[in-house]
Amino acid sequence: MHCEVIAVGTELLLGIVVDGNSAWIGEQLALAGIDCYFQVKVGDNFKRIEGAIRQALERSDAVICCGGLGPTQDDITRDVIAHVMGVEMRRDAVIADRIRSIFASRGRVMSQNNLRQADVPIGAQPMAQMPGTAPGLVCPIGDKVLYAVPGVPSEMREMISGTVLPDLRRRSGQAAVIMSRVLRTWGMSESGLAEALAVRVEELDRLGNPTIAYQASGIEGIKVRIVAKCDDAAEAARILDREEALLRGVLGDVVFGIDEQSMEVVVLKLLKDKGLTLAVAEELTGGLLSSRMSAADPAMAVFRGGRIAADAIADGRLPLNERAGAAAAAVRSHYQTGVGIAAVAGKREAGVVEVALAADLGGGRHGETQLLPGDQKRLRDFAVINLLNLLRKALCT
Amino acid sequence: MHCEVIAVGTELLLGIVVDGNSAWIGEQLALAGIDCYFQVKVGDNFKRIEGAIRQALERSDAVICCGGLGPTQDDITRDVIAHVMGVEMRRDAVIADRIRSIFASRGRVMSQNNLRQADVPIGAQPMAQMPGTAPGLVCPIGDKVLYAVPGVPSEMREMISGTVLPDLRRRSGQAAVIMSRVLRTWGMSESGLAEALAVRVEELDRLGNPTIAYQASGIEGIKVRIVAKCDDAAEAARILDREEALLRGVLGDVVFGIDEQSMEVVVLKLLKDKGLTLAVAEELTGGLLSSRMSAADPAMAVFRGGRIAADAIADGRLPLNERAGAAAAAVRSHYQTGVGIAAVAGKREAGVVEVALAADLGGGRHGETQLLPGDQKRLRDFAVINLLNLLRKALCT
Repeated sequence: MHCEVIAVGTELLLGIVVDGNSAWIGEQLALAGIDCYFQVKVGDNFKRIEGAIRQALERSDAVICCGGLGPTQDDITRDVIAHVMGVEMRRDAVIADRIRSIFASRGRVMSQNNLRQADVPIGAQPMAQMPGTAPGLVCPIGDKVLYAVPGVPSEMREMISGTVLPDLRRRSGQAAVIMSRVLRTWGMSESGLAEALAVRVEELDRLGNPTIAYQASGIEGIKVRIVAKCDDAAEAARILDREEALLRGVLGDVVFGIDEQSMEVVVLKLLKDKGLTLAVAEELTGGLLSSRMSAADPAMAVFRGGRIAADAIADGRLPLNERAGAAAAAVRSHYQTGVGIAAVAGKREAGVVEVALAADLGGGRHGETQLLPGDQKRLRDFAVINLLNLLRKALCT
Repeated sequence: MHCEVIAVGTELLLGIVVDGNSAWIGEQLALAGIDCYFQVKVGDNFKRIEGAIRQALERSDAVICCGGLGPTQDDITRDVIAHVMGVEMRRDAVIADRIRSIFASRGRVMSQNNLRQADVPIGAQPMAQMPGTAPGLVCPIGDKVLYAVPGVPSEMREMISGTVLPDLRRRSGQAAVIMSRVLRTWGMSESGLAEALAVRVEELDRLGNPTIAYQASGIEGIKVRIVAKCDDAAEAARILDREEALLRGVLGDVVFGIDEQSMEVVVLKLLKDKGLTLAVAEELTGGLLSSRMSAADPAMAVFRGGRIAADAIADGRLPLNERAGAAAAAVRSHYQTGVGIAAVAGKREAGVVEVALAADLGGGRHGETQLLPGDQKRLRDFAVINLLNLLRKALCT
């Protein structure tokens, strides 16, 4: 089963919008075990959209067409599809009523153009998910199928997950359920992970299910993705659970979370579970740490605040690691939190910076000194995640 | 002149990497007046890369092929190009020496594989720019041309700007120089800008040069791009200068900067020019403002620091605007800076939040209360940029 992706929109070709939709769809197709060999971007031009669709239908079994379903004159994907299908449009009364009521509920005047979104090529089926005003379409063409989804990422995602992937799986005769789980790691290189898991990966190569893959994700750490393929979801979940436990046993506290859990979410949860609050002293990271923590804890119930200054947070005459410890203690005391943490920069030398990280937990202090890359952005990114990782490990002991 | 872009790499189809390269190239082509009708992503597969290149050569005058020039077995773009050109490879001795010396200078062992990057299809010309180990290639094919550039964004950009665009302009017989300037605006809607500039745009439509276009860029404001096309660069620069002055005359202080100048860079420059320093109180924005200011001023010479807390920055019993003013004054006094600014949240109601922004400049206070969207991320983003804009206007008066 091959599925091709066509992203429609002149703004994509002009670089005004970066096409992240195709990348996301590609990832979902791969996870569903469906091959995607081509992804094409084309502008809002009838002939060229038609050409791209015809070519895709020729060389692939299914086509996902993303974008160009809006209400303006530019949005012609719907018309091109009807032309390729060789059919007329019908105005879908249910969708038209829905669009009218969306405008009415927002107190906005609807121009007649908006009802174009209720036009459906005869033989095509609107998708059940309809988070916006543009309906997605399932269009059978010969023994192949074309899916049209809007370019708005949230709407597109809902339709791909809710209609397109299940339909593709059904068509591919794949009764199997494919489920995946990501173990998020920090503190070990990709080759280190591969070495640690070599024996298990060899076993799995023989068994064939589940499979394991690594995905380096920069400041998000290295992801270890487990993919299980089974006859039913319960069995797949059991396999994922078992494999996760097994890999955690090997990797230990290098695994900080699963799936979409970021380091800050994990740290906030650990703090909350222990009834602790947090304050930060940012001499080095200039507000980046606070910004990430407050984004993950908007009510600032656990993360209580921080102090940012180029210097003067703590006595500059102290040795670096003691300065960081003193800064962590000072901010903990000032904000009256259970935990204070600090990142402080020391000597800068050829491309690297000496950095002290410290966590003051009241009862005890944890700290370490590291050499981090001198490039300002990477220095800050690494200091933030390493400091959070230090706190995470301190909270787990 | 049509130029097509092919991005090569299975990681692009799998969504592991989002293809930002094609978007950037598309933007550069548009600015150079060269049409781009198709952009295609294809995996590391000989037959499919070949198919994409042959089709592109058929329907376009020029092709830019991005990625697949690395040293590993996956990187086969070079081989496919030689095949399409119908030629053998020759090993370029100069490039080979260069690759050897790059490895030697880094004290790393070079595997023989790396010398594959010195292989050049006979008849192709290596590009002069060579920031990494992969050379870009200019490959004449019949009366058309194919450019191969690496997928590493910084290397790709250098080669596109240094070789590909000048070569494309020469081939298109376009003697003209195309230059652009972006006016960065904040505080006026796109339709507001269009209305304010309607008379001038009408004049320019008649004159034909320069042209003006709007580009909504979310939290970066709305960009007004002036594009001038002339016989020489000096004349183009003069036209841009004159048009910028004219538009600034109409738009006034809605224009906060040009080209790549962000709001924080502009504010930091204004402060520096006046010999002022800055501290911030973040009750609402949780460190985002500090993070952006310190990123733009890593030495923290002008931005001296800030305090972040959910509350308790200033007396909660005061009216909202007075609280913001008091917080700005307090942080200014604490950090002993010339200016203190603060963002404070008030009532939350159906989708909106009442927000007070204040700047204390020692001699005087500036402040305003606004209704901002209740969605946490947008609320913070808007509060940051609106607060900086308030300070910018205060510094200009």
